[in-house]
Amino acid sequence: MKKKRISNAVIRRLPRYYRSVDDLHYNGEVRISSSALGKSMGLTASQIRQDLSCFGEFGQQGYGYDVEKLRSALSDILGMNNGYTAIIMGAGNLGRALIQNFSFAHYGFQLTAAFDTDPALVGSHLAEVPIYHPDELEARIAQLKPDVAILTTPRSVVSKTANRLVEAGVTGLWNFTNVEVRLVNPEKAVVENVHFADSLLALSFMLGAHRSRQDEPRLSEDEDDTEGE
Amino acid sequence: MKKKRISNAVIRRLPRYYRSVDDLHYNGEVRISSSALGKSMGLTASQIRQDLSCFGEFGQQGYGYDVEKLRSALSDILGMNNGYTAIIMGAGNLGRALIQNFSFAHYGFQLTAAFDTDPALVGSHLAEVPIYHPDELEARIAQLKPDVAILTTPRSVVSKTANRLVEAGVTGLWNFTNVEVRLVNPEKAVVENVHFADSLLALSFMLGAHRSRQDEPRLSEDEDDTEGE
Repeated sequence: MKKKRISNAVIRRLPRYYRSVDDLHYNGEVRISSSALGKSMGLTASQIRQDLSCFGEFGQQGYGYDVEKLRSALSDILGMNNGYTAIIMGAGNLGRALIQNFSFAHYGFQLTAAFDTDPALVGSHLAEVPIYHPDELEARIAQLKPDVAILTTPRSVVSKTANRLVEAGVTGLWNFTNVEVRLVNPEKAVVENVHFADSLLALSFMLGAHRSRQDEPRLSEDEDDTEGE
Repeated sequence: MKKKRISNAVIRRLPRYYRSVDDLHYNGEVRISSSALGKSMGLTASQIRQDLSCFGEFGQQGYGYDVEKLRSALSDILGMNNGYTAIIMGAGNLGRALIQNFSFAHYGFQLTAAFDTDPALVGSHLAEVPIYHPDELEARIAQLKPDVAILTTPRSVVSKTANRLVEAGVTGLWNFTNVEVRLVNPEKAVVENVHFADSLLALSFMLGAHRSRQDEPRLSEDEDDTEGE
């Protein structure tokens, strides 16, 4: 893989490529053209070719993409075969939803521990994941060497917890708390935020657009609807 | 507001604009230039001016944006003042996390009911939200007229539930189930999917890029890092 810095836009599209190609593979498709893949994702064929060219040569003129090879290449590119491990901070409702229902293994991750202050939870297991007290955090990190920590803690302790994690050697933070993580040493880790609110507000916008489309007379239905993310 | 169809890329950026401007407002800022706003969001000034121009005139040459006016305009554009109501399908771990911890009101939404088959939950309240049995769905929708339904049901009932909701008059679906919603009448509703997996895979990719940056000698640190989503 080239060491070229990949833009955030491409990083956001890579998991969607994987998801589309994984669906095709699941449905027994063996090859797909860049235009058909683009159509299913609302992207142009040239956008797809340009994105994938950041990582090497995958398609073949006149043939398109071999679905299994592209799926396998995307899973490598995304690091799904790196054996990453994760711990989760907080075993409240959201933490439990992730521990019990999210298919970490499907995305190449193994969840090795959860941390919560609730005495009723400490020492127990949830879906085979042991729950420890945060007092043990540094000792357990030294032992388990997790790549990623998932943040579902109360908002008041987010940045304190994040800094403890990063100083103990965690290099990836998956933040569900809707609070910005402020790291003392931001160069030591990457942070991915899950913003539920952005998603709800996008839906709120689309709802308004949907209603005004339904209210207005149909005039220009042939407008080009293909869009580049 | 013009009736021009807004691209998906702009729809995705609108909530981020709101979030940035809301932060500025919270911190007492009264104006901001498009370049400063762009810098904080990883976008170019011209990208921001172009996006906002879809909705009218907000900035002023040489002054920038009035933070309070822009925040208020964005909240109107996003439909935050439309008095939208929502119901939630499923009061399991994720449903409870949303009911108890997500600030619906902060984004202009009111959560009016939850639905779950668990006899221990039906008839009770969570954070003042009444929980009903899904048998009552059509009757409660006729009474409450919710704009949005949030899907946190088991995967096996997603599409069946979604179709009941849409046929009963719900026009927005916020889907957390990681299963594609297949609507019999897709033109009747808009669907927003929350893909936790896309976010984890983006983090997985960034983790790999972070490590290879740390391993390589520093050569070209002055590369342009501004990117257009």
